[in-house]
Amino acid sequence: MHVAVTGAAGMIGRKLTDRLVADGHLGGVGLDGLSLFDVVEPATPEGWTGVLDRAVLDLAGPGAGDAVVARRPEVILHLAAVVSGEAEADFDKGYRVNLDGTRHLLEAIRRAHLADGYLPRLVFTSSIAVYGAPLPDPIPDEFPATPRTSYGTQKAIDELLLADFTRRGFVDGIGIRLPTICIRPGKPNAAASGFFSSILREPLVGQEAVLPVPESVRHWHASPRSAVGFLIRAATIDSALIGPDRTLSMPGVSATVGEQIEALRRVAGDSAVALIRREPDETIMRMVSGWAPGLAATRARALGFTAETSFDEIIRVHLEDELGH
Amino acid sequence: MHVAVTGAAGMIGRKLTDRLVADGHLGGVGLDGLSLFDVVEPATPEGWTGVLDRAVLDLAGPGAGDAVVARRPEVILHLAAVVSGEAEADFDKGYRVNLDGTRHLLEAIRRAHLADGYLPRLVFTSSIAVYGAPLPDPIPDEFPATPRTSYGTQKAIDELLLADFTRRGFVDGIGIRLPTICIRPGKPNAAASGFFSSILREPLVGQEAVLPVPESVRHWHASPRSAVGFLIRAATIDSALIGPDRTLSMPGVSATVGEQIEALRRVAGDSAVALIRREPDETIMRMVSGWAPGLAATRARALGFTAETSFDEIIRVHLEDELGH
Repeated sequence: MHVAVTGAAGMIGRKLTDRLVADGHLGGVGLDGLSLFDVVEPATPEGWTGVLDRAVLDLAGPGAGDAVVARRPEVILHLAAVVSGEAEADFDKGYRVNLDGTRHLLEAIRRAHLADGYLPRLVFTSSIAVYGAPLPDPIPDEFPATPRTSYGTQKAIDELLLADFTRRGFVDGIGIRLPTICIRPGKPNAAASGFFSSILREPLVGQEAVLPVPESVRHWHASPRSAVGFLIRAATIDSALIGPDRTLSMPGVSATVGEQIEALRRVAGDSAVALIRREPDETIMRMVSGWAPGLAATRARALGFTAETSFDEIIRVHLEDELGH
Repeated sequence: MHVAVTGAAGMIGRKLTDRLVADGHLGGVGLDGLSLFDVVEPATPEGWTGVLDRAVLDLAGPGAGDAVVARRPEVILHLAAVVSGEAEADFDKGYRVNLDGTRHLLEAIRRAHLADGYLPRLVFTSSIAVYGAPLPDPIPDEFPATPRTSYGTQKAIDELLLADFTRRGFVDGIGIRLPTICIRPGKPNAAASGFFSSILREPLVGQEAVLPVPESVRHWHASPRSAVGFLIRAATIDSALIGPDRTLSMPGVSATVGEQIEALRRVAGDSAVALIRREPDETIMRMVSGWAPGLAATRARALGFTAETSFDEIIRVHLEDELGH
């Protein structure tokens, strides 16, 4: 089996590729080829001995979609995106990458389908940003997408395209709405949600972190390891189980910032918690006030998608996967 | 005030233009200019003495959006679209006109806004086709858009774009989800919903009509006169009343085909009803089975959008407006 990954150089993309290489198969089918695409050159996965394409690719550029499908990968994991903060700050770039990039990929798959019957599984990473205030807690699966950001708008549009291209038989598409991924390793990215990770990640290694919102803020989280698990599950699940609404809200942990901090205290003590500095930020508070407090994720749970069940577990995953505990 | 209309040569476009010319104002502001656009040349409105631009324009073509905003119309009524049957039959054309055409128009408005602060009211005609089975009856305003056709997908995407461009302050957009317009005058178009009109229109002038679905089929209707009323209301309503969800489901009449036929019998007698020939069509039945039976339209009614309240009234409007009764 040949698998293509867009956004392969990103945090989730690298973890996903490592998992694929470590497993050596996808859904029980041996993996013999990998195509890795990103706007920066993806690294060669350690220990990989099969066919490998690595390419620097702007998905919104001419011919990019055709490059992704050139080897007719049976599975395409489409992670490439401009994150929420950047899509809000750079209107054109957000639409170009998050809408045009995904549409060009869908169109390239359709052209290949019309040419030779190609019909890959396409896993699209959507986001809980498709939901906009006022929101119930938890948000049921049938809640409408009413995004209040350009990023959420672009993801909601992609979900609609994915469903229509799948309904028309051009692709076998499944979308997954990722929770906020916590704890993100490494440096903060341009996502406005960055503090959810940094208030844990930095204190765990003895560094200060800034908390821009009140402790009462409730949000929806899953670990990077869970995100990779969602992608693998979506890549291998029986398509017929999904039905016409092709995008599923993923499970996660609903927690307040205060609950995050108490989990940190249990794991790393008062001295770690003392490293969190309160610096209220009106802009971030206003953005976060419209975010999802929690999701029912009923369909996804019934279909075997699993995540952590507590913030202690999310921190433990970080200690194991990033800090070698 | 200058008003632009896309799709001006279509059935609703012509009725809308006639109404604007007859009124001589829009929301109490005198009308001195009209720009009419369509893929076929729009007619000169009878009795119009103000500034008039008429242009043959493919909205998805290069520069088309800029042409629409060239005179900086205070109001743009965007009706141009490929209808449902055609969008399903010609995938590329549907996306090109219904998605790219609308997006290009929004982008042109944004460019003008960034250049000189231009901020028009844009009225976008959406459709109940954004709703897909399984559907409650009536469909509440907060029901999610889960289209089951390419046409419905394109309209749902346009609604998302309209909301985001409005939220960002580039345009003052309001979308209206039109019911199936009944009784359409003239010849059938490529819409799969055509029979809802023809089973009344043809018998009213002594001609045969074909009914492809059972009498139990329930659907959501408003007259062409009501559609024009919706557009005028959307063009003039206080924008602040709408909130962040910029598209409203329009009121109408929920009726079964059997109830339509009984209304015809009351108006035109048994001899008219006898002209309806049953010719079951599996394809149309399958399509129609997923259509909206009725909408609550609570927000729109509260905001002063009004439609007929019975099918007898819908037939009476047709007799008055089309047959000179």
